[in-house]
Amino acid sequence: MVADQKVQAPLVILPPTIAWFGGAEGQLLLLDTTRLPHEHVVLSLHDMHGVADAIRRLAVRGAPAIGVAAAYGLYLGVRQQRPMPGALLDTAREVAAMFLATRPTAINLAWALDRCLARLRRESSLAALFDEAQRIHQEDEVCCHRIGECGADLIRDGMHILTHCNTGRLATSGDGTALAVMFAAARRGRTFSVLAGETRPLLQGSRLTALELLAAGIPVQVLPDSAAAGLIARGQVDLAIVGADRIAKNGDCANKVGTYGIALACAAHQIPFVVAAPWSTFDPDLEHGSQIPIEERAESEVLNVAGLPMAPDGVHARNPAFDVTPCHLITAIVTDRGLLRPPFGLAIKALR
Amino acid sequence: MVADQKVQAPLVILPPTIAWFGGAEGQLLLLDTTRLPHEHVVLSLHDMHGVADAIRRLAVRGAPAIGVAAAYGLYLGVRQQRPMPGALLDTAREVAAMFLATRPTAINLAWALDRCLARLRRESSLAALFDEAQRIHQEDEVCCHRIGECGADLIRDGMHILTHCNTGRLATSGDGTALAVMFAAARRGRTFSVLAGETRPLLQGSRLTALELLAAGIPVQVLPDSAAAGLIARGQVDLAIVGADRIAKNGDCANKVGTYGIALACAAHQIPFVVAAPWSTFDPDLEHGSQIPIEERAESEVLNVAGLPMAPDGVHARNPAFDVTPCHLITAIVTDRGLLRPPFGLAIKALR
Repeated sequence: MVADQKVQAPLVILPPTIAWFGGAEGQLLLLDTTRLPHEHVVLSLHDMHGVADAIRRLAVRGAPAIGVAAAYGLYLGVRQQRPMPGALLDTAREVAAMFLATRPTAINLAWALDRCLARLRRESSLAALFDEAQRIHQEDEVCCHRIGECGADLIRDGMHILTHCNTGRLATSGDGTALAVMFAAARRGRTFSVLAGETRPLLQGSRLTALELLAAGIPVQVLPDSAAAGLIARGQVDLAIVGADRIAKNGDCANKVGTYGIALACAAHQIPFVVAAPWSTFDPDLEHGSQIPIEERAESEVLNVAGLPMAPDGVHARNPAFDVTPCHLITAIVTDRGLLRPPFGLAIKALR
Repeated sequence: MVADQKVQAPLVILPPTIAWFGGAEGQLLLLDTTRLPHEHVVLSLHDMHGVADAIRRLAVRGAPAIGVAAAYGLYLGVRQQRPMPGALLDTAREVAAMFLATRPTAINLAWALDRCLARLRRESSLAALFDEAQRIHQEDEVCCHRIGECGADLIRDGMHILTHCNTGRLATSGDGTALAVMFAAARRGRTFSVLAGETRPLLQGSRLTALELLAAGIPVQVLPDSAAAGLIARGQVDLAIVGADRIAKNGDCANKVGTYGIALACAAHQIPFVVAAPWSTFDPDLEHGSQIPIEERAESEVLNVAGLPMAPDGVHARNPAFDVTPCHLITAIVTDRGLLRPPFGLAIKALR
């Protein structure tokens, strides 16, 4: 049950990416990021299927944001079925399994669902489930702020910073992850400029990151993703900062497809390559990045742009949504628990 | 003076990329590759400005094809001015200078113009200029065939081959360069499949390479350019073959932006990275790739797709059309004069 509600807002004043409206009987409001930058559409969601659909089609995206959305979606799914108190956990488990299948790579989704189920095991009530979703939501905002403050000093005056995909307010409940570091540096008065990879196929860089940086008054240029390596080679990038969708125990990071290529180019030219992510992105069960499942999305996302076919009829496409950057290419990981330096395996273990 | 002539042809039967129609008073026919794959438009060009415009806006593109087009364009430019026999060379020099400025990176343009001017110095007649343009055209076709035959055995049954941009019949007067190697391998009965980078911003991979491979019955999948590194890391590529726009004396190769990132990923995973180019792509005057001028094209190519704006208003873009792959990342260079192996500086010198 998705109701579209068009919001006419000036370019730089965006509705919140995720909001809960009303009390326990309220609804989830999601800014449909697929319609940005040209349209501001807020989805008003009352049931789990609407939330799951929004996650699948990337109306809400960004690892932290889909964790928060899934927690609220789990609550909505259990609420709409009004199970007997004794059956609450079983119902929640079924709804959680449905959400877990929506997107396989970002661990924040599983982390948020697990946390809600654990709360229900301690406290079997709908109110507890709602409370847990709200806590996850509020904590994500705090995490973003901490990530920004933790990484801000990595940015120095005059730097040209490369980023990829969108890792800001449109990907989280707060300031973001990689972009939060930039926003925090800007608050400290640092002046720098950003090169944003357009992020094919769905252009989150051109559509979302450019919008957020424009709104924040930070100079930004978008570029074809494939131009990053050449600009790095020509000395036009001083620092790369990206987000992550899942981080293994050794520090290998899965992130939006294209990240690994940026890391290789940074390593070849001794440019620092930094990952920013909340603690919920660290998978406590995976030894190596090679074990991270890589979502393969619909061919149509690659073969069409803005609904128009680009390739000849009959041609097929590959569309892996993520790739894995091995830990040896990463200079630092900025988290809400502090700045991690290699060897990441030990640094991650020390913070658990 | 550009006249559009729509040709209704089935998908797999394309008009020639470049053709000369008529004798010395004839015209240059260029297939407008910007309209492919969905429309077959042939430009009928009678003067130098039409040819220069076609080169600038990539109606004709691919280093060998723009060399041939510029040679005919030079002839048209001199022909239309009907200079006195004594002023022929001076007029040709002026027209050549105009063509030289259309695109800075591919050396084939300068090579073809230089060759025409040299012919005029030996033989000061319009007929000689026309003859030289036709020779360049015919030799390019032969070159393509030789490149294909030279590299065909690099392709073995079952291989998954990565390529980038378009290097086939739509980029040359013949079979192409990197794609010619694939066509030659297919003629020898090899079975293999191709992963074609879509090649943002203008999608020559999706629009042109996919079309050529489809027409040739060679299995092809397009992919976002940024997906190449991750697929290489996951063992899904056995060989990369690309073209080149200019090759320095040490073997450093400029090619379509995104090539360098592919080479870095191939090197990181011990996958052969092969360049295919005619001898006219080798610049005898440049020591290193860092001296190759990199064309920066219009921001609008990045900010819009199919005429639709993707980024918010007010955002700027970088649009370097090429990057440079250093010789140490290249496994072999396939040429019409033979297969070059490292050290390329010596191999190139030996063939001069």
